[in-house]
Amino acid sequence: MNREELLKKISIKNEKKLILIVLDGLGGLPVNGKTELETANTPNMDELASKSELGLTHPISIGITPGSGPAHLSLFGYDPLKYDIGRGILEALGIGVKVEKSEIAVRGNFATHENRIITDRRAGRIPTEKNKEIIDFLKTKIKKIEDVEINLYSGEEHRFVLKLSGEGLSDELTDADPEATGKPITYTKPKTKDAEKTSRIVNKFIDMITEELKDFHPANTCLLRGFAKYPDIPSMEELFKLTPSAIAVYPMYKGLAQLVGMEILDAGHSVEDEIETLKKHYNDFDFFFVHVKKTDSYGEDGSFDKKVKVIEEFDKLLPEILSLNPDVVAITGDHSTPALMKSHSWHPNPFLIKSKYQRIVYNNKIKFSETECAKGVLGRFYSLDILPLMMANALKFKKYGA
Amino acid sequence: MNREELLKKISIKNEKKLILIVLDGLGGLPVNGKTELETANTPNMDELASKSELGLTHPISIGITPGSGPAHLSLFGYDPLKYDIGRGILEALGIGVKVEKSEIAVRGNFATHENRIITDRRAGRIPTEKNKEIIDFLKTKIKKIEDVEINLYSGEEHRFVLKLSGEGLSDELTDADPEATGKPITYTKPKTKDAEKTSRIVNKFIDMITEELKDFHPANTCLLRGFAKYPDIPSMEELFKLTPSAIAVYPMYKGLAQLVGMEILDAGHSVEDEIETLKKHYNDFDFFFVHVKKTDSYGEDGSFDKKVKVIEEFDKLLPEILSLNPDVVAITGDHSTPALMKSHSWHPNPFLIKSKYQRIVYNNKIKFSETECAKGVLGRFYSLDILPLMMANALKFKKYGA
Repeated sequence: MNREELLKKISIKNEKKLILIVLDGLGGLPVNGKTELETANTPNMDELASKSELGLTHPISIGITPGSGPAHLSLFGYDPLKYDIGRGILEALGIGVKVEKSEIAVRGNFATHENRIITDRRAGRIPTEKNKEIIDFLKTKIKKIEDVEINLYSGEEHRFVLKLSGEGLSDELTDADPEATGKPITYTKPKTKDAEKTSRIVNKFIDMITEELKDFHPANTCLLRGFAKYPDIPSMEELFKLTPSAIAVYPMYKGLAQLVGMEILDAGHSVEDEIETLKKHYNDFDFFFVHVKKTDSYGEDGSFDKKVKVIEEFDKLLPEILSLNPDVVAITGDHSTPALMKSHSWHPNPFLIKSKYQRIVYNNKIKFSETECAKGVLGRFYSLDILPLMMANALKFKKYGA
Repeated sequence: MNREELLKKISIKNEKKLILIVLDGLGGLPVNGKTELETANTPNMDELASKSELGLTHPISIGITPGSGPAHLSLFGYDPLKYDIGRGILEALGIGVKVEKSEIAVRGNFATHENRIITDRRAGRIPTEKNKEIIDFLKTKIKKIEDVEINLYSGEEHRFVLKLSGEGLSDELTDADPEATGKPITYTKPKTKDAEKTSRIVNKFIDMITEELKDFHPANTCLLRGFAKYPDIPSMEELFKLTPSAIAVYPMYKGLAQLVGMEILDAGHSVEDEIETLKKHYNDFDFFFVHVKKTDSYGEDGSFDKKVKVIEEFDKLLPEILSLNPDVVAITGDHSTPALMKSHSWHPNPFLIKSKYQRIVYNNKIKFSETECAKGVLGRFYSLDILPLMMANALKFKKYGA
């Protein structure tokens, strides 16, 4: 029996409520001897930690730095190496584009060619505003190729998303990308017979865009990569018999939550809004994924102090979440984003879980921190096991075997 | 190379002796701040723990509550998700019925029908004595169907075991169980062509038992579930080159030990008897599984104090085991059974191992407890790795690779 068969077999529905709070990129590295979390003044998380079980979690495995996609899949209980979400889909999710199971999403770059030789794979990183103008223009020009509907969406700078809707589409295509300058405009090739139609349409699209943009130098052609269908992934309802909801402000996280069948709630624009949403819908679901983005954003910017401040702001709001008295609450990150590194990192995530059925309670007041989590009774484990641990603590798992 | 190939390749025979002591359901949850093990006065285990390495073990994986079957397989070094022991076999083992590789074991319920509609799936939970009478009666009536021998064994209340012995039997059958009252007597169906003969015999059996029991209301028919062959599982001799023995009082544990090729010793009726057995046979084997049942029984009953007492009684006897001076001794549970929950749970097991080749010895006297094990130098690991750890400490593993 594999892991998912086991989860499906043992999970049961009950009334207990789970809240998984993800402070994106929470874990850090010390500056002046303390990490961001250790520097932050967090009386509410500290009080909770003193009554919780602590540990450190690896998003994928030791030493592996994940992107937001695999890191969140793991938090949701899905093996991130089994479900490799295609780049086209992640790019679409990242800008809030809804993709259906039959559609194909593709990452596009505007690029520059001179006499059909690619001279800049990013079209001089045109401003996002310019990108929007070009996309608006193209939308009026390219709507359909054969029986396939063409949808275009602006991203940042030179990036866009192409979405194909129609019958008989395949994502078994090679990238239409020379991967270096000085090479000709590159077409896609079908990897299988079933992908021939899609390949033909994509290559017509490349020709059409190159024709339409002939006066738009430096953005006068495109590269297309990461052809991807919506992944075939069981829902959280199937795996865990949960009725799950997501409270997140940023499109990427809403999209990831939607992938696993969460209901996406209107979460407003701030953590305060998110908590209002949680309260408003608390009776409607039994699992809540609450996502706080800015810890990661400031980590990526290298803004140690601002990351500290976001943590402190969240801490002030925590009592409102706890006042709902959930049966199981967990606080963690999806991955670490140390301001010192200005990037995601492989360092494991601080983790706490509070439930009625936890075994060990700390006697002393402790600080919720990487250092305390490293000493925690839960030890080090995989983010993949967080959902099972929460399920167990909510008595939502039957015994396996007799 | 998979795990079992590795184990077979590196294990060697030597004279060193391993004793694995399993206090069934040992781990608990705190009541008044302390678990059962923490409450118990255990000077001998504490002294041993102070000279041992400690850790916590997951029977299956984080959050998963196992039954006794998978929990023990894991302790014996077998992947409990790979070897999913059929319910029929576990039920047979549980009442001490020996099953051969060619036979099929089935869980039976006496049930009540009115005009062939099932009105009670458990025949009003008839007394066990009544069950024995009925089985004795049926034994004289149903001995063989076609060329297949029919064996019947009483269980508790409405439960019995059916064992089929003969040529060409298969366990690829659906349950003969309507799963609800108000539905007709249900027959089994073959899942494969090979199972047609077995299906035909089982359905004849259902007709015969319903006919024979027509005056035995409420036990006037039966349900049959969990058709299972004896699993194809390598012996501990094959995997580990051990000559293993089991010292257990309860049939289920003898049966599980027998599944992996242990010699079942006559263990008497008490822990004292078990230790006498251990002493008597100490020269005959190199691995001893010593099973103490009542820690689990009192956990299941919710009897915190009685579970404490069983732990204390075992502790008094521990010096007799240690006086044999085994090369490696480990003490643990198969799973936790907190009296607070009156059931098995997912909480990891306290674990200690004492050997000449352990790395770290505690400096202070400590208590053998969940809290100390959570801080232990072995961290948290899977029960599946206990046997390999014991083997290594007995120098029974060669180096892997050059």
